[in-house]
Amino acid sequence: MKLGRLNHVGVATPSIEDSLALYARLFGAQPHGSAFDLPAQGVRVCFVDTPNSQIELIEPLGPDSPVRKFLEKNPLGGQHHVCFEVPDIHAAKAVFEAKGARVLGEPRLGAHGTLVFFVHPKDMGGVLTEIMETPKQAH
Amino acid sequence: MKLGRLNHVGVATPSIEDSLALYARLFGAQPHGSAFDLPAQGVRVCFVDTPNSQIELIEPLGPDSPVRKFLEKNPLGGQHHVCFEVPDIHAAKAVFEAKGARVLGEPRLGAHGTLVFFVHPKDMGGVLTEIMETPKQAH
Repeated sequence: MKLGRLNHVGVATPSIEDSLALYARLFGAQPHGSAFDLPAQGVRVCFVDTPNSQIELIEPLGPDSPVRKFLEKNPLGGQHHVCFEVPDIHAAKAVFEAKGARVLGEPRLGAHGTLVFFVHPKDMGGVLTEIMETPKQAH
Repeated sequence: MKLGRLNHVGVATPSIEDSLALYARLFGAQPHGSAFDLPAQGVRVCFVDTPNSQIELIEPLGPDSPVRKFLEKNPLGGQHHVCFEVPDIHAAKAVFEAKGARVLGEPRLGAHGTLVFFVHPKDMGGVLTEIMETPKQAH
């Protein structure tokens, strides 16, 4: 397996709207489409494009959102995860598991409409890492 | 000012060698050149390429390295900063300051040989943000 595209950096925020206002004010950046709910992950999501990648703003959705605990420790928000692409999500899962990296649950639908899984940060140098199957449409 | 390329994600680690071994084992990733010291930032640095961006592994250099405190809180390491490119570092500094974002010190030489500065995470939604003048050579 080769290290794939850095699809996005996930940034937790208590308010997507406030973060979008900040990115617009400091960088002139606009959202890539509207914010949307991703119930399978317990988050509300909005992307901001850079010329080569994306920032994924994530806000807690529902009382059990995994982002709530992160925001308790980091009330302003902060870097939450990085996401790398792979050509085949099931093949990638098999590779990670064979090498002893803990995959958190079964692949499920991610924000780009393809299957994703997360790897435990303790097996990734403290970095919560999302692995995402490359969308079929070109970048 | 427009949001520039996501040049890299800075990942703090207690050992660049151990992190490189992890990236090689899980992703087949090789370092982009050898690790090197960056005394102005108090870090030792090594890059790993993704097809569209880079991971910057950073290890403390010297007793006063700002990365030491980060590793005390995150002994395994973790996401430390994100770095966006701008065409002109001094123009960017003026824009950030005019908009009330705290720039940490004067522009200084960064890991890619161009001038960089950091913006206070409290003014960037909790994300320590490096702003870097785009290298003159093409990507």
